[in-house]
Amino acid sequence: MKIKIAQFGLGPIGIETLKLIATKPWAEIVGGVDIDPKKVGLSLAELTGIAALESSRVYSSFEELLQKNRPDVVLHTSVSRMNQVFPQLEPIVRAGVSVVSSCEELLFPQLKEPALAKQLDELCRKHGARVLGTGVNPGYVMDTLAVCLTGVCRNVEKIEIERVVNASLRRLPLQKKIGSGLDPDEFRKLFRENKMGHVGLVESLALVAHCLNWKIGDIKETCEPIIAPNDIQTEFLEVKKGLTCGIHHRAEAAVNGETKLTLDLKMYLDAKDPRDAVKVYGDPPINAVLHGGVHGDRATVAALVNAVPTVLKANPGLLLMTDIAVPRVS
Amino acid sequence: MKIKIAQFGLGPIGIETLKLIATKPWAEIVGGVDIDPKKVGLSLAELTGIAALESSRVYSSFEELLQKNRPDVVLHTSVSRMNQVFPQLEPIVRAGVSVVSSCEELLFPQLKEPALAKQLDELCRKHGARVLGTGVNPGYVMDTLAVCLTGVCRNVEKIEIERVVNASLRRLPLQKKIGSGLDPDEFRKLFRENKMGHVGLVESLALVAHCLNWKIGDIKETCEPIIAPNDIQTEFLEVKKGLTCGIHHRAEAAVNGETKLTLDLKMYLDAKDPRDAVKVYGDPPINAVLHGGVHGDRATVAALVNAVPTVLKANPGLLLMTDIAVPRVS
Repeated sequence: MKIKIAQFGLGPIGIETLKLIATKPWAEIVGGVDIDPKKVGLSLAELTGIAALESSRVYSSFEELLQKNRPDVVLHTSVSRMNQVFPQLEPIVRAGVSVVSSCEELLFPQLKEPALAKQLDELCRKHGARVLGTGVNPGYVMDTLAVCLTGVCRNVEKIEIERVVNASLRRLPLQKKIGSGLDPDEFRKLFRENKMGHVGLVESLALVAHCLNWKIGDIKETCEPIIAPNDIQTEFLEVKKGLTCGIHHRAEAAVNGETKLTLDLKMYLDAKDPRDAVKVYGDPPINAVLHGGVHGDRATVAALVNAVPTVLKANPGLLLMTDIAVPRVS
Repeated sequence: MKIKIAQFGLGPIGIETLKLIATKPWAEIVGGVDIDPKKVGLSLAELTGIAALESSRVYSSFEELLQKNRPDVVLHTSVSRMNQVFPQLEPIVRAGVSVVSSCEELLFPQLKEPALAKQLDELCRKHGARVLGTGVNPGYVMDTLAVCLTGVCRNVEKIEIERVVNASLRRLPLQKKIGSGLDPDEFRKLFRENKMGHVGLVESLALVAHCLNWKIGDIKETCEPIIAPNDIQTEFLEVKKGLTCGIHHRAEAAVNGETKLTLDLKMYLDAKDPRDAVKVYGDPPINAVLHGGVHGDRATVAALVNAVPTVLKANPGLLLMTDIAVPRVS
């Protein structure tokens, strides 16, 4: 019995997700959902270039898709905020269909939207559905992996999590997202206006604290531009010396006044020694480095697709990555 | 509500486990079980030096303990083989009590004792109990962690897992277990007689293959002595140049004739660059190194104790480390 999957959101990530699902022998694609009128009615073959998807179509809503074919799981890649995602997920969950979503705040929605999280969890349990937010970051390198690394510790005093991404190797959208070419003051203004910075960093922190049963106070956040030390040329754009070539976003939290948890994310052009590192100050100590780092563009859709079989084995509810079985390639 | 725990097996590891449990606010120790008549009847305070355990006693059997106090979980540290562990676990499971065990073969008992594994799983489901085999190795660094690292891969071609332990930093039993001071030919003879080598290495391999849905053929195993390049002096013993100072145990498996999975374990005196490393040849590739490695003596009891709350949240059955929620410090 194959798992029937529908893809909600047919932007670049959604298309990539579909292409990966199409390679999995355990999966069957039953359709797509997008609000873009230019896409509605097309076949998924036209959108992805995969001929085998000729009979799967794009619908303008989940309800419309449901009338044709009932998926077991909806793969959801559209918005980043819990209050935006809730109305999109509600009809899916009410139909008893499970969801794996790339929505960043859904990684740990209890942080910013505890009431909505509670409501979604109750809906899931009532209708027998599961909802999970995941991805590579948030979802894995700065949260789930760090939690997993504490599994062989007798106790943990402090955790430092670091991710360094060489944005020169990434696609244009990521190079833009990190503020490449911006005047540094403009960058800082955008962060103050909540328009710059890595969405999900504080959710990663909150998830780790939750798993370790640490009652943290306020999360301290800083986000500074990284300044180009010389002119930088990428495949897609050019940044003059002195302008922004990346982002340094940091979040930390304390327990009883002592800093316990630090997440430090640098994504910038021409970054040296890209890596994902987790340092656990504990007994025994753990000093883990994923040399080269985990490539975000390649890994994000993998994290989503890999979670599908695992989520379906879990009990109904609003799930956390750390509630379900250990991640693995599907 | 605290989790009531009984300790089955009161050798050095069992005592260490008790000491760690005694530090956990969520746990209550209700007694111990050991067949050693010198221990039966003693209080756990006498065995551990922890005064708070004055009222907990050592019983000669689980049945006897059960008449006094019903645990939620038995922490089991006695034997290494599934056929030895089965008769010890059967009465516990029949009482509906869950088990976390250090038995190496129990990490993946389906490999060598599929019939016993099936029987144990059925007993668990019938009586509402859970059984898990875990530890640091097997149980974590060469299996669960490797599986977890594939969670952000679109596909995986091959995995190489390596552990290098500096046995000079470990206790005397480990220094002896790796054959320190043996004539190399005597070492090889002992391996052929199944009396030398790391119990659990093939179970780790089989667990990873199981999670990745790889249908492997026979597991190829080699185990060679590491020869002392000069006289070596540890805190506990001396090894002359030319004699055995450690073990190099390797297991590999192929799918359709192609080697997919390699586990390479070196434990020897004065080992340089101790580490736990996992190399995933996949998309994206993962090159993970736990620099310094995970200290086995400290970590093994942590892995056992940390699994307790997680196991109790799982559905009844014979569980694998990769069936339950992501590990974390408890």
